[in-house]
Amino acid sequence: MTDTKRLLLNCDMGESFGPWHMGLDDQVMPLVELANVACGFHASDPVTMTRTVMLARHAGTAIGAHPSYPDLVGFGRRSMQCHPQEIVALIQYQAGALAGIARAHGLTLNHVKPHGALYNDMMRDHDILRAVLEGVACYDASLPLMLMATADNGPVKTIAAEFGVPLLFEAFADRAYDTLGYLVPRSVDGSVYHDVDRIVEQSLRLAQEGIVTTLEGSEVRLEADTLCVHGDNAESVQAVKRIRQALDRLYAS
Amino acid sequence: MTDTKRLLLNCDMGESFGPWHMGLDDQVMPLVELANVACGFHASDPVTMTRTVMLARHAGTAIGAHPSYPDLVGFGRRSMQCHPQEIVALIQYQAGALAGIARAHGLTLNHVKPHGALYNDMMRDHDILRAVLEGVACYDASLPLMLMATADNGPVKTIAAEFGVPLLFEAFADRAYDTLGYLVPRSVDGSVYHDVDRIVEQSLRLAQEGIVTTLEGSEVRLEADTLCVHGDNAESVQAVKRIRQALDRLYAS
Amino acid sequence: MTDTKRLLLNCDMGESFGPWHMGLDDQVMPLVELANVACGFHASDPVTMTRTVMLARHAGTAIGAHPSYPDLVGFGRRSMQCHPQEIVALIQYQAGALAGIARAHGLTLNHVKPHGALYNDMMRDHDILRAVLEGVACYDASLPLMLMATADNGPVKTIAAEFGVPLLFEAFADRAYDTLGYLVPRSVDGSVYHDVDRIVEQSLRLAQEGIVTTLEGSEVRLEADTLCVHGDNAESVQAVKRIRQALDRLYAS
Amino acid sequence: MTDTKRLLLNCDMGESFGPWHMGLDDQVMPLVELANVACGFHASDPVTMTRTVMLARHAGTAIGAHPSYPDLVGFGRRSMQCHPQEIVALIQYQAGALAGIARAHGLTLNHVKPHGALYNDMMRDHDILRAVLEGVACYDASLPLMLMATADNGPVKTIAAEFGVPLLFEAFADRAYDTLGYLVPRSVDGSVYHDVDRIVEQSLRLAQEGIVTTLEGSEVRLEADTLCVHGDNAESVQAVKRIRQALDRLYAS
Repeated sequence: MTDTKRLLLNCDMGESFGPWHMGLDDQVMPLVELANVACGFHASDPVTMTRTVMLARHAGTAIGAHPSYPDLVGFGRRSMQCHPQEIVALIQYQAGALAGIARAHGLTLNHVKPHGALYNDMMRDHDILRAVLEGVACYDASLPLMLMATADNGPVKTIAAEFGVPLLFEAFADRAYDTLGYLVPRSVDGSVYHDVDRIVEQSLRLAQEGIVTTLEGSEVRLEADTLCVHGDNAESVQAVKRIRQALDRLYAS
Repeated sequence: MTDTKRLLLNCDMGESFGPWHMGLDDQVMPLVELANVACGFHASDPVTMTRTVMLARHAGTAIGAHPSYPDLVGFGRRSMQCHPQEIVALIQYQAGALAGIARAHGLTLNHVKPHGALYNDMMRDHDILRAVLEGVACYDASLPLMLMATADNGPVKTIAAEFGVPLLFEAFADRAYDTLGYLVPRSVDGSVYHDVDRIVEQSLRLAQEGIVTTLEGSEVRLEADTLCVHGDNAESVQAVKRIRQALDRLYAS
Repeated sequence: MTDTKRLLLNCDMGESFGPWHMGLDDQVMPLVELANVACGFHASDPVTMTRTVMLARHAGTAIGAHPSYPDLVGFGRRSMQCHPQEIVALIQYQAGALAGIARAHGLTLNHVKPHGALYNDMMRDHDILRAVLEGVACYDASLPLMLMATADNGPVKTIAAEFGVPLLFEAFADRAYDTLGYLVPRSVDGSVYHDVDRIVEQSLRLAQEGIVTTLEGSEVRLEADTLCVHGDNAESVQAVKRIRQALDRLYAS
Repeated sequence: MTDTKRLLLNCDMGESFGPWHMGLDDQVMPLVELANVACGFHASDPVTMTRTVMLARHAGTAIGAHPSYPDLVGFGRRSMQCHPQEIVALIQYQAGALAGIARAHGLTLNHVKPHGALYNDMMRDHDILRAVLEGVACYDASLPLMLMATADNGPVKTIAAEFGVPLLFEAFADRAYDTLGYLVPRSVDGSVYHDVDRIVEQSLRLAQEGIVTTLEGSEVRLEADTLCVHGDNAESVQAVKRIRQALDRLYAS
C-alpha cells in the first residue's frame, strides 16, 4: 500500500463455516486489494481460514482480521454488551488466530476491520472504539484499523492518535449516504443501490474527487482510503468487476 | 530454559470457561516453569486466556499453546476423526490465538502441547503425529512440541526430525508406568498415585536418574525434559509444592 | 401447587456445563418447591439436564424451563437484539428440550422462567415480554410464566391475559427493593443482602404480609407467588435452609 | 402411515444454520412423506427449525427428529466417543427440542432418525444402537426409529424388540449395494448413482419387489419401509420428482 492516493477495494471474505458455503471468494479475491477475513466468531473455522489465506496469497491480496462478537448463529450482527476488556481480548484472540494461519502460509496481517455489530457499535460509542483501539494497539500498534469514513473523520482520528493506531477509512460503493456522510439505514427505501452503473459512478467519483452524492441529491466530501465491495452473489461480483475496470482505467491514465 | 539438565515442571492451565472456574492457576503458576494454556477449543475464552497470560507473566512462567479438538462440552477428551489438514489448521489457529494475546502482554510462545484426545491420538497414530508436527513446523519450526516420554523415544524423534521440530518429552509425577514406559490406563487399580510421598519420590528419581519404578516393581528408563503436574485442587497443589521444594533442593546442591 | 397461599421457593439449577461444575444443586433441590433448569443456551447440556431432572424427581421438586439467549461464554447475561420470532423459537426449543428429557424420567414442565438478560429485557420491554408470552402460549398456554413481582403487577397481567398465559410472580429474598417494588441495582451499596437474619426476615414478611421494607426504610406491597433463592455456595445454601425452616414453621402453625 | 405397503420417501431437511443456507427444502418438502429435521447439534437452530416445521405442516409431510453428535463445524459426520448415557440424553434433548417447536405449530414427531456418524456408529456397534434405542424408548416407546435396511434385518429387530421400539427400515435410491445389502463405500467408483434413470429404476424395483441389483450385478432382497432421497441441489430435486411420479403411478394403478 505504498501509493496512498489509490482507492483500494476491500471485501469481507472467508465467511463460510464448516459445511456451509457463503460468498464467491475465489471470484472476488483477484479483484480487490484487501480481504477482511472472518476469524471464527461470526463465521469461518480453521480450515476455511486456511483456504481463504491460500486464496489471498495466490491472488496477492493483503489480508486483515475481521473480528466479531462471539455469535455464530447471529453472524455477529447483534450488539452484545461486552465489557471493554472482553472486546480487547477478543480482538487479540481473533487477530492472533488469523495471524497464526497466515504465518504458516507466509503472510502477515495488513489491518483489522471489526465485523457487523462490533463495527457499528465502535462507530457510535467511543468507549467501544477505545476498547477496539486498545486491542489493536497492544497487539501491534502499527496495524491499521479500518473504519467508516464520514463527513468529519476528525473525532475518530483524535481518539486513534491516543493509541498510536493508524486508520484506514472506508466508503461504500453500493450504499446511499446522508448529508453528514453517514449511511442511510437499510430500512429506508433506496438506501442500497442495485443498479451497477450507479454503483460504478459512486465508486469513480469517490476515487477521483472524494465526493459522494447523497440520497437527497446534495454532495458530501468523504476522505476514504478504501471502498467496501461485496462478493455475495453473481450480481455483486459483476459490480466489483466493473468497479475494478473503472479504477484500473483511472489509475492507468 | 538455558539449563537442559533440569527437569522442568509443566501444568495445564487456563481451563476455566466463561463463568465456570477450573483449576487453582494462581497457586500453581509460581511453582512451575511451563504453563500449557488452553486456547478456546476444549476450554478457555479470550478473557480467561488474557488472565492466564498475565498470571504467567507475573510469575515468570513460560507459556505454551495447548490446542485441542473442537469439543467444549466434552473438554477435548473424545477422539474426533479430523482430517489431517483440519488438525494442521486447528493447531495453527489455536497457537496463533494464544500468541496474539501473549504478544499483547509482551510474551511469546515457548512450546505446543496438544490436549486430551488429540495428545493421545498423536501418541498412538503416526499420521496424526505428522499432522501435528506439520501444523507446528509451518507455524514456527523452532517451537518445541511437547509429547510423552516412553522407554523408546526413538521413533517419535525420527518423525519429528522430518519436520525439523524440536521435542520436549514429558513424564508424569502421579501416574504408574508399565515396563515399556507407557502409562498404566486409568481403569487399572493403582494407576494414579494419590500418596504425596510416592509422587515426590517418582519425581525426584526421574530428575536424578531418569528412572521410574513400574507398577510391577521393575525399573524403566525415561528420557524426560519435563514433568507434568496438576493444579486441580488443594491436594494436587500440595503435591506440586512438595515436588518444587524437592527439585529446588536437588538443583541447589 | 394447589395451595396458592404458600410462598414457594424457586432456585436456578442445572447450571453446570460439560466438565465445569456450578451450584450446590444436590443440597438445594430438597429445600425448594420449584427448580428453574438451564436448557443448554446459557449453561447445561443434555447430560447435566438429565442429572438435574433426576435430582428433582428424587426430591419431589417441580421443574421449569429456564431459557436464555444463545450465549454460553457470557452465561446469558448480555442483552442480544434478537428478533421477536427468534425469541419465540428459542423458548419453544429450550422448553421442548427440557420437556424431552423430563418426559424420559416421568416428569413434565411446571413453568417457564427466562434467564438473565432475557428476563431483564422482558421486564423492561413489552415487545420482548410479548415474544416470550407468544413462545409459551403456542407451546402450552397452561404453562405459567415466572416473572418479577413489582408494586404494580397490573400492566404485566394485562399483557399476559392477551395470550392466556398464567403468571407466577417472584420476589427476591436477598435483594433490596425501591419504593416502586423494583430491585435496587447491584451497583448500589447495600443492594444485595448477605446477613442471613435480614434475608430470613424479608422472606417471612413477604410470606406473611406480602410486604417488603425498602432500602430507604419505607414499605412496599409485593404480590408474590414464589421467592427466588440461590444455591451458589455454602453460605447461600445456609440461608435457604433457614428460610425453609422459617416457612415450614409458619405454614405448620 | 396407515398403508405399510407403500414405500415412503424420506429426506434430511432443515440443515441450514443461522445465516447459512443448505438444501432446497421448499421444493422437496411436498414430494416426500417424511422429513428428518436437524435439531441444532449438526445443523439448524430454533428459527430454522420453526421454518422447517411450518414448511412440513403446509405440505402435509410428517416430521421426525434427526439427532446428531454435538459437532456443528463437522456437520455431525465425525464419530465421537460419547458415553452411552450421553447418547441417551442427546437424543432426548434433540427430539424434545423439535417436539417443542412442532407442538407450537400443531405437529407431533413421527419418528427418530440419527444423523451422520451417529447413524453409522449405531449400524456397526450394537452398544451404540442400544443407547439410541434406550433414548427413544424412554422418551416415547411408540416412536419408530429409522435405520438402514440390509439383507438381514433380523439382528437389529431382535435388539429393538428388547426396548419395544418399532423400526422403519430405509433403503437408498442413489447408492450402490453389495451382496449383503450394505452400501458400497463412497470411496469406491460407481458407489453413488448420478444417472436419474438408474435412480428411478432402483426406487421402483424396491417399491415393487423389494429387490436391489448390486454393483456386481447380482440381486439382494431388502425389506425397506422408506427410501432416502436428497434435496441438496437442482439435480437431486429433479431425481426426487421423477421418483415421486413413478411411485404415484405405481400406487395409483
